[in-house]
Amino acid sequence: GIATIDNHREIRVGYPEVIYCEGKTKEQISKIVSVMLKKNNNILGTRASREAYEEVKKICNHVEYNELAKTIVIRNKEIKKSESYIAVVTAGTSDLSVAEEAAITAELFGNRVERVVDVGVAGIHRLFGKLDIIKNAKVIIVVAGMEGALPSVIGGLVDKPIIAVPTSVGYGANFGGLAPLLTMLNSCASGITVVNIDNGFGAGYSASIINKL
Amino acid sequence: GIATIDNHREIRVGYPEVIYCEGKTKEQISKIVSVMLKKNNNILGTRASREAYEEVKKICNHVEYNELAKTIVIRNKEIKKSESYIAVVTAGTSDLSVAEEAAITAELFGNRVERVVDVGVAGIHRLFGKLDIIKNAKVIIVVAGMEGALPSVIGGLVDKPIIAVPTSVGYGANFGGLAPLLTMLNSCASGITVVNIDNGFGAGYSASIINKL
Amino acid sequence: GIATIDNHREIRVGYPEVIYCEGKTKEQISKIVSVMLKKNNNILGTRASREAYEEVKKICNHVEYNELAKTIVIRNKEIKKSESYIAVVTAGTSDLSVAEEAAITAELFGNRVERVVDVGVAGIHRLFGKLDIIKNAKVIIVVAGMEGALPSVIGGLVDKPIIAVPTSVGYGANFGGLAPLLTMLNSCASGITVVNIDNGFGAGYSASIINKL
Amino acid sequence: GIATIDNHREIRVGYPEVIYCEGKTKEQISKIVSVMLKKNNNILGTRASREAYEEVKKICNHVEYNELAKTIVIRNKEIKKSESYIAVVTAGTSDLSVAEEAAITAELFGNRVERVVDVGVAGIHRLFGKLDIIKNAKVIIVVAGMEGALPSVIGGLVDKPIIAVPTSVGYGANFGGLAPLLTMLNSCASGITVVNIDNGFGAGYSASIINKL
Amino acid sequence: GIATIDNHREIRVGYPEVIYCEGKTKEQISKIVSVMLKKNNNILGTRASREAYEEVKKICNHVEYNELAKTIVIRNKEIKKSESYIAVVTAGTSDLSVAEEAAITAELFGNRVERVVDVGVAGIHRLFGKLDIIKNAKVIIVVAGMEGALPSVIGGLVDKPIIAVPTSVGYGANFGGLAPLLTMLNSCASGITVVNIDNGFGAGYSASIINKL
Amino acid sequence: GIATIDNHREIRVGYPEVIYCEGKTKEQISKIVSVMLKKNNNILGTRASREAYEEVKKICNHVEYNELAKTIVIRNKEIKKSESYIAVVTAGTSDLSVAEEAAITAELFGNRVERVVDVGVAGIHRLFGKLDIIKNAKVIIVVAGMEGALPSVIGGLVDKPIIAVPTSVGYGANFGGLAPLLTMLNSCASGITVVNIDNGFGAGYSASIINKL
Amino acid sequence: GIATIDNHREIRVGYPEVIYCEGKTKEQISKIVSVMLKKNNNILGTRASREAYEEVKKICNHVEYNELAKTIVIRNKEIKKSESYIAVVTAGTSDLSVAEEAAITAELFGNRVERVVDVGVAGIHRLFGKLDIIKNAKVIIVVAGMEGALPSVIGGLVDKPIIAVPTSVGYGANFGGLAPLLTMLNSCASGITVVNIDNGFGAGYSASIINKL
Amino acid sequence: GIATIDNHREIRVGYPEVIYCEGKTKEQISKIVSVMLKKNNNILGTRASREAYEEVKKICNHVEYNELAKTIVIRNKEIKKSESYIAVVTAGTSDLSVAEEAAITAELFGNRVERVVDVGVAGIHRLFGKLDIIKNAKVIIVVAGMEGALPSVIGGLVDKPIIAVPTSVGYGANFGGLAPLLTMLNSCASGITVVNIDNGFGAGYSASIINKL
Ligand SMILES: Nc1ncnc2c1ncn2[C@@H]1O[C@H](COP(=O)(O)O)[C@@H](O)[C@H]1O
Ligand SMILES: Nc1ncnc2c1ncn2[C@@H]1O[C@H](COP(=O)(O)O)[C@@H](O)[C@H]1O
Ligand SMILES: Nc1ncnc2c1ncn2[C@@H]1O[C@H](COP(=O)(O)O)[C@@H](O)[C@H]1O
Ligand SMILES: Nc1ncnc2c1ncn2[C@@H]1O[C@H](COP(=O)(O)O)[C@@H](O)[C@H]1O
Ligand SMILES: [Mg+2]
Ligand SMILES: [Mg+2]
Ligand SMILES: [Mg+2]
Ligand SMILES: [Mg+2]
Ligand SMILES: [Mg+2]
Ligand SMILES: [Mg+2]
Ligand SMILES: [Mg+2]
Ligand SMILES: [Mg+2]
Repeated sequence: GIATIDNHREIRVGYPEVIYCEGKTKEQISKIVSVMLKKNNNILGTRASREAYEEVKKICNHVEYNELAKTIVIRNKEIKKSESYIAVVTAGTSDLSVAEEAAITAELFGNRVERVVDVGVAGIHRLFGKLDIIKNAKVIIVVAGMEGALPSVIGGLVDKPIIAVPTSVGYGANFGGLAPLLTMLNSCASGITVVNIDNGFGAGYSASIINKL
Repeated sequence: GIATIDNHREIRVGYPEVIYCEGKTKEQISKIVSVMLKKNNNILGTRASREAYEEVKKICNHVEYNELAKTIVIRNKEIKKSESYIAVVTAGTSDLSVAEEAAITAELFGNRVERVVDVGVAGIHRLFGKLDIIKNAKVIIVVAGMEGALPSVIGGLVDKPIIAVPTSVGYGANFGGLAPLLTMLNSCASGITVVNIDNGFGAGYSASIINKL
Repeated sequence: GIATIDNHREIRVGYPEVIYCEGKTKEQISKIVSVMLKKNNNILGTRASREAYEEVKKICNHVEYNELAKTIVIRNKEIKKSESYIAVVTAGTSDLSVAEEAAITAELFGNRVERVVDVGVAGIHRLFGKLDIIKNAKVIIVVAGMEGALPSVIGGLVDKPIIAVPTSVGYGANFGGLAPLLTMLNSCASGITVVNIDNGFGAGYSASIINKL
Repeated sequence: GIATIDNHREIRVGYPEVIYCEGKTKEQISKIVSVMLKKNNNILGTRASREAYEEVKKICNHVEYNELAKTIVIRNKEIKKSESYIAVVTAGTSDLSVAEEAAITAELFGNRVERVVDVGVAGIHRLFGKLDIIKNAKVIIVVAGMEGALPSVIGGLVDKPIIAVPTSVGYGANFGGLAPLLTMLNSCASGITVVNIDNGFGAGYSASIINKL
Repeated sequence: GIATIDNHREIRVGYPEVIYCEGKTKEQISKIVSVMLKKNNNILGTRASREAYEEVKKICNHVEYNELAKTIVIRNKEIKKSESYIAVVTAGTSDLSVAEEAAITAELFGNRVERVVDVGVAGIHRLFGKLDIIKNAKVIIVVAGMEGALPSVIGGLVDKPIIAVPTSVGYGANFGGLAPLLTMLNSCASGITVVNIDNGFGAGYSASIINKL
Repeated sequence: GIATIDNHREIRVGYPEVIYCEGKTKEQISKIVSVMLKKNNNILGTRASREAYEEVKKICNHVEYNELAKTIVIRNKEIKKSESYIAVVTAGTSDLSVAEEAAITAELFGNRVERVVDVGVAGIHRLFGKLDIIKNAKVIIVVAGMEGALPSVIGGLVDKPIIAVPTSVGYGANFGGLAPLLTMLNSCASGITVVNIDNGFGAGYSASIINKL
Repeated sequence: GIATIDNHREIRVGYPEVIYCEGKTKEQISKIVSVMLKKNNNILGTRASREAYEEVKKICNHVEYNELAKTIVIRNKEIKKSESYIAVVTAGTSDLSVAEEAAITAELFGNRVERVVDVGVAGIHRLFGKLDIIKNAKVIIVVAGMEGALPSVIGGLVDKPIIAVPTSVGYGANFGGLAPLLTMLNSCASGITVVNIDNGFGAGYSASIINKL
Repeated sequence: GIATIDNHREIRVGYPEVIYCEGKTKEQISKIVSVMLKKNNNILGTRASREAYEEVKKICNHVEYNELAKTIVIRNKEIKKSESYIAVVTAGTSDLSVAEEAAITAELFGNRVERVVDVGVAGIHRLFGKLDIIKNAKVIIVVAGMEGALPSVIGGLVDKPIIAVPTSVGYGANFGGLAPLLTMLNSCASGITVVNIDNGFGAGYSASIINKL
């Protein structure tokens, strides 16, 4: 076998296993999906190519593909939306793809999501214009590349948990997202925790657990 | 002046400003405390030396010092404990000082805290023996140095948000905590977010916000 | 000449030279194989492209190619299998290609190999289900990417030598396998030694020496 | 000889040579000062210990020492203050010593300096309260440690050149000032240029040249 | 929406928002341009591909593309040239593309620019031959890859502010421009500030602010 | 409590828990020893200061301290020596302290040890003079700092498993042992596995497991 | 102009300027060659693509291209060979392309070159078989990737200056040649100096200067 | 024994073994010296503390100590000075101690040495004033910290081999000498080879071999 599916996971941690598609062949992905389909759960694949999606479509007609987020989604069970919501905030237009991975993950796991787009610190009034949506969320995901300063500023303005997601958007001494990662880890604002560079999925997942508390 | 105290912070984010004592002289610390005392809030200083504590004691008799956590605490207002609790879990004995900073922060902010000590992955049955305390927490702080694998293992066993704190415990290719930091950021278990190396305070603060949701 | 073949190596260290194909042209590889064929040994080429394989096939019809492991194998002498076996354990599906390089190396050098697939720490019960196969091996190779925590957990459960192989599976702050490499070097479980990132060959080779002791 | 004093520098670049005291013995420093005194210029020594200062005092009675900035200053010529001023802004109290090195350098070179203290992004209203002083400067020096986000925010609010100075204030994944250095280099606000970590002197010098344009 | 255009920026900082095209689709870029066109400003897009340019050309016929600098420029308002000028100096031929990004930015913002090409330190007499043009500038941009020593040498010869731009030209232990970046940050010549690797835009922008003082 | 002693470990992995003394107070160490003494096992503490040793001596008179290796050893049970032996080879005199930690660990765990001292590659004939002792070992530990080339050379000469230990001996671009660590991980000789920088204990432990196979 | 050719260099340092082709367009390269042709010197271009070569061929029929070394050579003046020779030694087959760049540079500058191929430390008897050729050289260039241990071993055996060239051959923790670079810089053998990763040209050039002394 | 003295080295490589004193106890050093004294050679110890010197003085009265260079020297045989000389050039006063280690090494090995002090690029006319001494040397050692640009400039002006020595003089993004090390490795001037950070000894040794050719 190529995989040992963790069928027991939903019972243990509340959600079924998610397929990390990068570095797997489309055949491997399709095979894993076929095993998971037997449990009739909703299925999520992240970092999936269009080719992988097309392979899966052969065995499951209602699979959906999000080009921006690179996600494969199969909805087999109805999803009830939470009352409280998660705000997904991006610093720039280029961070949208990571933010969308977070939003789709959160939505599939039954959370209401509000998107706030392109409010980076270089034009801070843009942030103030959207502050209410952000403040009224139960959890806030902040996605930022370049220098990644946005979570620090928001952290000083709200009393909600912030999950900061550094992105690999940038060049030169950005070092593939290292710059915003360090920024977020060293934030002098409190209430900020951090996930891996470009890990929209992880942020959406953690936000979901917190939103459901 | 040497500081612009953020008196407004409690209103904005729910907690008064906390004093980061490292790199400040004992006179600077004492001066900042004296200004904050006027507001009659509870006061927390982190990474404080015994000398700083003694300087502060001159102007505030009921200040407390925790040698292990290197914290200065002044209690001016009664603290009501939360019903739900935060679990603070450590991988090894050497991680205790960071864990204690987290626990003291959380307690000062009104949270009940349960400590689980020295249950690192090298003897995983020790973890299983304490799993109930961990599972029943509302939020879990996991403190680990060396390779920092403990959050990954706990992450696969519980459905609560985990805040992982890498410590600088280790040597050689540990690079002052870089090894466990990377481990935690790359965890293939979900539901884990990360704070800076040795940042017990940040973990306690974030856990507190979540526990109060 | 383009190479100085180490014909004497088998006498010195017990195994003939192995061809590291990366960074060599297919003509260079074929030329080296042609020289080695004269000694009638079994021949192994690692990190070989399909093109290199096809070039070699022109001069040696019974050459085999493993797409997953990227190995070229020529069997000229019968291989006797060892009684004791080497366990090759992977944390995830994406680590299979490195694991297969290790397994093929070990098998070509006359070792029995047992494969245990996709038992990473995020679902630790999967590991417990396979623990017997692992415990009864004479040597254990553990292949893991992402945060690479699996060797630490196994190290706390068995009394056999573990060779840990970090893989470059992951993204962001994984830094091409640096994260699991550091994890494994800093393991607080004992009995673990480490080889280079993605070096399945090296793990298979060392395991073989130990298994033959 | 131990040094080749650049007596010609004032003519070429407008200011006499400055003594970088770190890594020089107090005898070497005193010897260099004694040579420079012959030119009757104002003399600046940076990163000087109290011991070095006391050694210099033996040969020049009117030398001044600034404990916070670690500077030695000898005023031999009257200094005319510029009309326009340089704003020196700090994110936190712990950045004061680097900021003071910048301010003293600028003042000795004939610039009016306005200090704005402790207005970091975690409490951004503090910044807005001082924005007028900052906006009316001809050049702005922004000194910040931890994640170093302050220059980005100011950069989005003013139309003056900003010289950003990362400090080594912080711990863990701050890596001795690497975190704020990368933040400042990657800033998505424009008009920001950067000097070395803790290089208050360099910032004061560059600001001075610009202020005199 | 995909973007929150900062229409207010020109009032705040003196220049309209600039489009950073890398990591945006050509459709996103065109959409942002279409919104900005309504304000009748001059528009600048950096790091743009020819494809992006052609997409924009569909909605704005007079857009210009510079192959070397990878810039998109739309001139809607007349640009008055400054009397004083900015010198843009390059160490080698391979640094020309970054230098051109700086020059185009500066020119679009109304500055006179003088270019000095290929005067790196390996043949220092070439620099002396052009020193007059450099000395008479109001601000100097120095663009250099490899070891990036040119700003240090110029810094010792002039009394004007120098903005140093490290480029990613080089190989091996150049680490994508890290070598010249560190060189420039550590320069023992004074009056040098630094921008990100390959950030011609940032250098042109800062130089423009200073030239207009 | 400050620790959860893993009393079960000897049954699981064959050896009792070892105390890593760095970062523990002498009181903590003494307390852990006192608990372990109840099981009447042999006890090993690594990276122990003389102060820790003296504290332990108060509760256990027959404790031994090795100044060079920084080990605390308590022998409660007789140790039978293995027939086959482990060779502990050092490249230079400065590597002796790490080598001694390895040797003491191996001896306490019942292995015969042969020491080969100061045979680094700069004078390779020294190695050839001792090659017989090395070749006849069952496992070989090679300890080297500076560039750490010795394991590669030995790896090409023997058919036994080699455990390479990089040390932090060196300066400059050695980066605290990073240089020899990378050398050993990248060795083109086969049969070499690596432990953490300065991890003599880990090498002794792994060698012991292999020697007992 | 795109370049300021250093026509004066031959007089100053003994050799004409060499064209570093990477990062230049074929048109730029051809233009630079056309200017240099006027001086009737021998011309060398390094890191040149076949396309660049073909462009140059249009203006100079007798240009030669070396596929392995990626060099363009134009011989306009007779080259007298030195009596003493430079040895160019490679550790493995994959290092040949860097070694050839060194050899071609040295030969064009009038040096006799002896090549010794594939004598890396994993089979050290191969080195001893060629030691005479190496010992009798006036200067020795040693080219090695992977862990780069060969210069250390040769350094302990000869009394001639060694120029060590690390190559980017390797994977994983090789980090693009960083591993052998550090090895060579930290060598405990004396008489070794180092050039940049893959810098065959630089080694050939320096060796040439020394051989001509 | 604690060491295997390489008595044969003088025959092989022309010079007796040199004692690297860092990380050795004074007793170890004295013991090694006592063995070497039997051969009646000149003896050199580098990176020696005053304590080590005093220990050695007990067994050898005519030992000399250089405080600046941290060298121990014992002259037992007359040293004939070479006709041609080595130039040892420093960029700043703080680099003197590394330069002196180089000079003493070279002198002990029989070379005439000319010292040129404090001629760094920030005041380049200082270099031109000393260029004749530099040009007439047979080999040139250039010692520089901070950004380490001096070798590049000299490399463009002379036709002699240059050995560049980066020093750890600097702070912040100097990273203990990494900045000048990278500068020197990436130099676009030719004829430069590099030794480890602060490795004055290695530079003096290599220069000596070349000077004797
Ligand atoms: N984008 C992602 N980033 C990090 N972890 C992920 C991502 N997508 C899925 N995962 C985790 O990776 C696990 C599957 O790994 P594997 O066994 O290699 O398929 C899932 O259970 C998830 O917890
Ligand atoms: N995948 C691999 N990783 C590391 N080393 C290898 C690998 N494959 C072969 N080797 C080693 O590389 C040596 C050959 O290197 P070369 O002379 O460049 O062909 C062989 O003798 C093996 O010991
Ligand atoms: N704190 C500082 N940081 C960076 N450069 C400095 C500093 N103080 C002085 N310098 C520069 O260092 C030069 C002196 O270096 P040195 O010859 O080593 O004394 C001066 O001319 C200044 O340009
Ligand atoms: N080449 C560049 N490098 C760095 N920053 C840039 C560059 N081009 C534009 N910018 C900045 O990036 C901002 C736009 O980012 P975004 O919202 O992602 O389009 C602009 O306002 C500029 O300040
Ligand atoms: Mg935007
Ligand atoms: Mg423990
Ligand atoms: Mg899996
Ligand atoms: Mg403050
Ligand atoms: Mg040029
Ligand atoms: Mg020795
Ligand atoms: Mg080979
Ligand atoms: Mg000086």
